[in-house]
Amino acid sequence: MVTLAAEGILTQQRIGALQTEAGSVIPEATIAYQRWGEFRGSPDGLNNLIIVEHALTGDSDVADWWCDVLGPGKALDTDTWCVLSTNVLGGCQGSTGPSSTHPDGQVWGSRFPAISVRDQVEAERLFLDSLGITRAHAILGGSMGGARTLEWALMYPERIDSACVIAVSARASAWQIGIQSAQISAIERDPHWQGGDYYGTGQSPAAGLAAARRLAHLTYRGEQELDERFGVSPQQGENPLGTYRDRKQRFAVESYLQYQGRKLVERFDAGSYVILTESLNRHDIGRGRGGLIKALAACSVPTMVIGVDTDILYPYHQQEHLSRNLGNLLGIARIVSPVGHDAFLAESRQLDNALRRFLLLSQSTDTGVGDYSI
Amino acid sequence: MVTLAAEGILTQQRIGALQTEAGSVIPEATIAYQRWGEFRGSPDGLNNLIIVEHALTGDSDVADWWCDVLGPGKALDTDTWCVLSTNVLGGCQGSTGPSSTHPDGQVWGSRFPAISVRDQVEAERLFLDSLGITRAHAILGGSMGGARTLEWALMYPERIDSACVIAVSARASAWQIGIQSAQISAIERDPHWQGGDYYGTGQSPAAGLAAARRLAHLTYRGEQELDERFGVSPQQGENPLGTYRDRKQRFAVESYLQYQGRKLVERFDAGSYVILTESLNRHDIGRGRGGLIKALAACSVPTMVIGVDTDILYPYHQQEHLSRNLGNLLGIARIVSPVGHDAFLAESRQLDNALRRFLLLSQSTDTGVGDYSI
Repeated sequence: MVTLAAEGILTQQRIGALQTEAGSVIPEATIAYQRWGEFRGSPDGLNNLIIVEHALTGDSDVADWWCDVLGPGKALDTDTWCVLSTNVLGGCQGSTGPSSTHPDGQVWGSRFPAISVRDQVEAERLFLDSLGITRAHAILGGSMGGARTLEWALMYPERIDSACVIAVSARASAWQIGIQSAQISAIERDPHWQGGDYYGTGQSPAAGLAAARRLAHLTYRGEQELDERFGVSPQQGENPLGTYRDRKQRFAVESYLQYQGRKLVERFDAGSYVILTESLNRHDIGRGRGGLIKALAACSVPTMVIGVDTDILYPYHQQEHLSRNLGNLLGIARIVSPVGHDAFLAESRQLDNALRRFLLLSQSTDTGVGDYSI
Repeated sequence: MVTLAAEGILTQQRIGALQTEAGSVIPEATIAYQRWGEFRGSPDGLNNLIIVEHALTGDSDVADWWCDVLGPGKALDTDTWCVLSTNVLGGCQGSTGPSSTHPDGQVWGSRFPAISVRDQVEAERLFLDSLGITRAHAILGGSMGGARTLEWALMYPERIDSACVIAVSARASAWQIGIQSAQISAIERDPHWQGGDYYGTGQSPAAGLAAARRLAHLTYRGEQELDERFGVSPQQGENPLGTYRDRKQRFAVESYLQYQGRKLVERFDAGSYVILTESLNRHDIGRGRGGLIKALAACSVPTMVIGVDTDILYPYHQQEHLSRNLGNLLGIARIVSPVGHDAFLAESRQLDNALRRFLLLSQSTDTGVGDYSI
């Protein structure tokens, strides 16, 4: 008998100590999660559990950010499936991260160790263990959630029956490391950052975090979509073509990007942003496994790959690379959209179709599928 | 009789006062330039003058940055052509800019007005007037140099016989404004910027300028080229996968980007970087001309367009847009390269071919071509 959190309610679960890939220890880690739909089947065999992995600044509230694909009658049909999502280790939505309290009663701050995507997966494995669940029907996610999904398939193939990897690559590219490091640097250059120990000082690196988000957003959105929306339009009531440069006189797109920065500052912790972005820099499924090609070829989990044709951050050729090399490919789907990377959140019709196809294919690989899920 | 600077020698020329598009005045402006090859023909008719326009942080030393295409026997054959290049207004290589001395004896600093690409062209027109030259066989340039070339063709079609516009667009896209504004912001957030009046204070916004360049470089280089060179390699002797995040332990690509930042700081002024980047934000050939399509259709100068297939900053569809709409198109050439935007500097063989083709086509539109140039 598996006991899970009440439907949709953010719930914290202690998972004990976690040793990071790089050799540090996080004692008494906590993972916060949400759940929709009833769990059916065996916790260590065939069941109806789907684990959804969120992106960098996302969270476990899948019903919010994937509202078009989660729910009765939708691709992730909660009448059929039990959908569960954890908040990532290192984040700031209830799971242990740099803004959490250290066992000594102070905030972790700069003492929080660097973590890899594998550490995030390890925390989730401990979390599922703590619930008494050792197997899931499917795991899926986009962007950093896609990186976790891929590592799940490689680290614990015996625990997941299928995987769907969206808008991500087998490892960080040099360009990604470059733009991600620039974001980290924008935060570290903010004097309020205070080496990562700004908690409780009354100052926070809001300007640095906003600058980081502004950069990130330019990698999340396709240039055609941004241009169709904003072009060279001035922000209403402002004149960016004045006699002198004046940063208060903006183009509409500047105002939009600043707004995205402000919105993130209101809801996200700069320390978590640094730790999670660093984990993306460290994303490399080939590490310690004989390289990318060997690692992908050895992947036994039936896996579907989804990409976006206009993605600047994780260009589509990276998903083609995954699909060419994965040992057990279910298929590849290409979302066609001017939106860029964020199309995996925005193009709900195409995504709904692709996820339905994935779940259909994933069930055809099971033997006793009809018994517990449909 | 036209008297020009000695071959290859940087020479300054006073051009008098310049009124900016936005309504400010720069009195006593100076333009610095270089020249290769003998001027032949008529200063107000057919002649062998080719004007080369440099990019954002480039300069008039075409023999340096385009050494593979400039010189005897090369595409810009200095036995045939007189090649002339000015340093852009607002820059820091001898032409008047924010680090220059104001008529009152102090540095311009924040008093330097915002300028547009049109103002840069206007300064060049005044410069040519001051030399007694009112016509040129061709004008060409890439990136910001391409923007000036395009504005030349629209502002003074009677003064140029042909144009070659490389790796640029008809106007700034929202994405460009976004990433360029982020660069300006990185400089303005540096406390040493001091509102643009850091000259003579003993402090300069080196960190901000380096951060800006680091971002810019990620738009100049294709992600495939960067990845082939650096991938996830650590910088030699450093370990970016350590137990704690440590900004001194870097991936190779971080070190490379920081090096690009440092190199720019050594040779470029932050005030000029802001002014010139702002001019790119204001680039819009449709402004005051009934929009882009009307402006391009009205362009009577025979114009060739060159683009790069992997350009992130000025994607190839923007050059296709130019070629579809220009009133007098000579042709379009596509440089195929993993390098991205900088391919117009790096892929010298392809560029040499394209420029030869341009010059051949440009001469076929003249009547008395053989007499003065070949």
